[in-house]
Amino acid sequence: MADIPSKFDIGVTTGPIRGSRKIHVGEHRVAMRAIDLDPSSGEQPLNVYDTSGPYTDPDARIDIGAGLPQRRREWIVARGDVESYDARALRPEDNGQLGPDRSGGVQPFPNVVRRPLRAKAGANVSQMHYARRGIITPEMEYVAVRENIGRDALVAHIRDGQDFGASIPDHVTPEFVRDEVARGRAIIPNNINHPETEPMAIGRNFLVKINANIGNSAVASNVAAEVDKLVWSIRWGADTVMDLSTGRNIHDTREWIIRNSPVPIGTVPIYQALEKVGGIAEELTWEIFRDTLIEQAEQGVDYFTIHAGVRLPYVPLTAKRVTGIVSRGGSIMAKWCLSHHKESFLYERFDEITEIMKAYDIAYSLGDGLRPGSIADANDEAQFAELYTLGELTKRAWAQDVQVMIEGPGHVPMHKIKETMDKQLAACGEAPFYTLGPLTTDIAPGYDHITSGIGAAMIGWYGTAMLCYVTPKEHLGLPDRDDVKVGVVTYKLAAHAADLAKGHPAAKLRDDAVSRARFDFRWRDQFNLSLDPDTAENYHDQTLPAEGAKTAHFCSMCGPKFCSMKITQEVRDFAAKQNAPVETFVAVEDAEAGMAGMSKLYNETGRELYMGAAAREHD
Amino acid sequence: MADIPSKFDIGVTTGPIRGSRKIHVGEHRVAMRAIDLDPSSGEQPLNVYDTSGPYTDPDARIDIGAGLPQRRREWIVARGDVESYDARALRPEDNGQLGPDRSGGVQPFPNVVRRPLRAKAGANVSQMHYARRGIITPEMEYVAVRENIGRDALVAHIRDGQDFGASIPDHVTPEFVRDEVARGRAIIPNNINHPETEPMAIGRNFLVKINANIGNSAVASNVAAEVDKLVWSIRWGADTVMDLSTGRNIHDTREWIIRNSPVPIGTVPIYQALEKVGGIAEELTWEIFRDTLIEQAEQGVDYFTIHAGVRLPYVPLTAKRVTGIVSRGGSIMAKWCLSHHKESFLYERFDEITEIMKAYDIAYSLGDGLRPGSIADANDEAQFAELYTLGELTKRAWAQDVQVMIEGPGHVPMHKIKETMDKQLAACGEAPFYTLGPLTTDIAPGYDHITSGIGAAMIGWYGTAMLCYVTPKEHLGLPDRDDVKVGVVTYKLAAHAADLAKGHPAAKLRDDAVSRARFDFRWRDQFNLSLDPDTAENYHDQTLPAEGAKTAHFCSMCGPKFCSMKITQEVRDFAAKQNAPVETFVAVEDAEAGMAGMSKLYNETGRELYMGAAAREHD
Repeated sequence: MADIPSKFDIGVTTGPIRGSRKIHVGEHRVAMRAIDLDPSSGEQPLNVYDTSGPYTDPDARIDIGAGLPQRRREWIVARGDVESYDARALRPEDNGQLGPDRSGGVQPFPNVVRRPLRAKAGANVSQMHYARRGIITPEMEYVAVRENIGRDALVAHIRDGQDFGASIPDHVTPEFVRDEVARGRAIIPNNINHPETEPMAIGRNFLVKINANIGNSAVASNVAAEVDKLVWSIRWGADTVMDLSTGRNIHDTREWIIRNSPVPIGTVPIYQALEKVGGIAEELTWEIFRDTLIEQAEQGVDYFTIHAGVRLPYVPLTAKRVTGIVSRGGSIMAKWCLSHHKESFLYERFDEITEIMKAYDIAYSLGDGLRPGSIADANDEAQFAELYTLGELTKRAWAQDVQVMIEGPGHVPMHKIKETMDKQLAACGEAPFYTLGPLTTDIAPGYDHITSGIGAAMIGWYGTAMLCYVTPKEHLGLPDRDDVKVGVVTYKLAAHAADLAKGHPAAKLRDDAVSRARFDFRWRDQFNLSLDPDTAENYHDQTLPAEGAKTAHFCSMCGPKFCSMKITQEVRDFAAKQNAPVETFVAVEDAEAGMAGMSKLYNETGRELYMGAAAREHD
Repeated sequence: MADIPSKFDIGVTTGPIRGSRKIHVGEHRVAMRAIDLDPSSGEQPLNVYDTSGPYTDPDARIDIGAGLPQRRREWIVARGDVESYDARALRPEDNGQLGPDRSGGVQPFPNVVRRPLRAKAGANVSQMHYARRGIITPEMEYVAVRENIGRDALVAHIRDGQDFGASIPDHVTPEFVRDEVARGRAIIPNNINHPETEPMAIGRNFLVKINANIGNSAVASNVAAEVDKLVWSIRWGADTVMDLSTGRNIHDTREWIIRNSPVPIGTVPIYQALEKVGGIAEELTWEIFRDTLIEQAEQGVDYFTIHAGVRLPYVPLTAKRVTGIVSRGGSIMAKWCLSHHKESFLYERFDEITEIMKAYDIAYSLGDGLRPGSIADANDEAQFAELYTLGELTKRAWAQDVQVMIEGPGHVPMHKIKETMDKQLAACGEAPFYTLGPLTTDIAPGYDHITSGIGAAMIGWYGTAMLCYVTPKEHLGLPDRDDVKVGVVTYKLAAHAADLAKGHPAAKLRDDAVSRARFDFRWRDQFNLSLDPDTAENYHDQTLPAEGAKTAHFCSMCGPKFCSMKITQEVRDFAAKQNAPVETFVAVEDAEAGMAGMSKLYNETGRELYMGAAAREHD
């Protein structure tokens, strides 16, 4: 791992994740991460899903100023339904420069594409459109290989989980991916102007995904830090990244991010549109908004959060709430509706927006502008009124074969999470749900990655397809690099807990590998198999720093005398010596007579075994 | 807050928690923490449950070498059923000194009671015994006041929750406490030799409690650090503390801890017994174990973890597990059973142990020695075989009016948590469940406070009465002071999330107070109302350190232009100007004609309102 400063003063973290090897599988060279285990284990390397892109590949040449290879471009062009054209001209207001620029500016990305792609007249380049016409795209093939990770290693598919009506297959085939996308139960967000992506799917019948938010704001942050946060967040497992920048240099910052991102990038276009009107919501117009969509579509944004469900009649429903409207986009649109006393132009122009989406294959992320911002406001009339409208809009988008996911709350106490999920599935025809947490209590600012990680794991189990991370700084400040990592790892573990509980065929492989490593005192394997090997090893070293302790058959929690792990081996050895099936070798009915003899045998075979300690927990 | 070093070189953290005031309520002067809110709020101070004891009371004189005031002693003596007697003589092996002492030693607590109390011959001093005879003790009265916190402020008791069959009352009366203790659904752990405690209840129909583990081990730690960890963990909310020390100086360390603890202290006596036989499990005897129980009973331990459910025939059930036996106590007893091929002396002598428990009012914490240590082993035959035996033992303890709680797992994926809880309720007649986590995945060492916080919140919701914390160091090393705090706060938020979801009548008061503070930009109130005001303020200051930012009507996440909070106030103001009920002031059917007028009105009244930003979350 090394921080390489580029000539553009943008340094990012590169190099393999500790204990892992980058591998590429199949015709499309699908990137995965192989974790080699100690030879004493007799186990094959464990392959895990890998979101980190070329940055963790020692063979890749990283040049932030050039951007990533455009691996998907030939697939896109080969379909014969796109054309290149002269891009919309960049204007000062695209970078928030309405007056004199005192920001110091951001160097423009040096490699900007001046001739973006769009669908030929009358064509539709969305993955959903191909899927519905029975076409299996390379993107779908890529997703199938990627999602299958570990399943090939399974001898038998013993399902152990409660999937609440999901339809998770034993093996993911390209045809299954196609079918899920065609039905609208999954999306593959992939703007044709973002050919740098490694395709991924978001849907209830695939692995649960996570999103990390980055973005500067008017108060702090800068472009170098944002590109670094992008690379840093995908290193630890972010499946998509949203750029929530506001303020100055928003266009140029986004260009740097997209050109260097192997994961889909989402944005909230209304933020930039608002900058273009000097921050005055009432002065927003459809024309300015539409122009912003085109601007971002040409750059390659993969999904747009559009708050088209914040309709004029729903605004008053928030009046009695404890925290009113907590969504930035929602409040902007509510203010616009109220000021003009008109229906939202996002709602009224929805089909026109969809026309743009299908020309670039941008997915909708239908925003929940009226989501609850407190426990008190959870599952109220405003929230569900908007949700039903999002369901209506989903069907309108689907009518044009445009991909859709639905954003969800927010702050929801545990007993109301299932209701939220069930209503979404019913209202939106199983379109993927993409939730922020939800936070299960309001009282722990500073720990909201955890209050929300609880809700995220649960709603992921119930059927949410992607979980938007929350960092420890939520409600308090802007996340720094450490906060981003903690947020990503917390959500990764929540998503995995959800996969386990849903009975995902291969999820348990990794848990079992970690647990076997623990039982065998293979400390390095335990670290390397974990979500964050650096932190695991660092914590271990704080108590027992010596290298010898990495191979010790005891650990710092119990010390050498108090072990709990070796006893099982003793039981097994004992049973083997008896030549009896282990299940039967001790029966409650054993006569006292037999006991003395068995005791003698035990003392001969097992007693002197060294007692270490490994995965001991507190008694 | 100040670290005061005492003449005994044991410094502990004292002084009020930021923004809080210690108050004492009612005849028994029940300690609570009042959080004063900004006068602009027009709100009364919020009183919260307080576990921190005299250490946060500026009026208390703290002398670690003298110990805390023995507030309960007069209650105990007044019942007329105890006698004092010469304590068992201290022996070198009580401090693990079987050979020459090279540990440097621990200074004995200077104020040791040489004449402990016990029940008079034939008497039973357990709270359960009094309860079953219809006696309401001062301890029960104390608990009732303590648990009622906030309920008196409620105008109406609108239940909003799913309690899975719990019976949470609108108001907690002393009679309710008595009844719950009599039925065995709650315990008040209170050794008569630990009169320093502020009584508290553990039971499904009370607030969910949390336990923090401290304790040195042979490898690290020392007595000063352990006393500091005790005071530190109760400062942040630990309801009970377990001293899991092993190795040298175990007796003296425990004396320092108990004498300075206002919360119940639990131990695992088999740890000390094992030290007395040089760490060789096979050499344990009933006599040594019994002697250890008396030793600890005289010191004042409030609950004992006893692994009496690890029976000989269950040991082989662990043979095919991935992680075998992960409980230290469980593995010690399994080794003993196997070596002697005899039934566990803890099981066989259970009624004799109960005789000791009732003479001091020590509660059982029936240990789950066969709990799963990995996802693979969750809810298996070994776990449930032991659980059914714990149910049998519960009834035997209850037959002697001795208080019981039941320990639970461990590692359990989300979809198996409810089954664990339901089986415990059925098998153990609703005796309080006390679980470690459970951890919902094995793959995140370094983050196991979170993997387990998810499981803890869920099982607390389903009916667990006390949650044993897990720190970030779990599986890796010994927790330091920071880890202890993170573990305690994580479990406090999980317990609160559970109370909320169960529909506890007053739990939501605090969430609502935090949320109103957010909405009103009362930053200081938001910090002070949170579980960890220091961290909340520190995180805020990392982005916006200036004092002015504490009163700013915007925050660092959105900056001054992008606010989402003020819009609600604008909606309300607008509705008021219309003289119309807010629910009806905008209807979908509004004629276009009316809209222009309303727009004008809005522009006159609300448009120029300053847009700040407060509780914005990511869109």
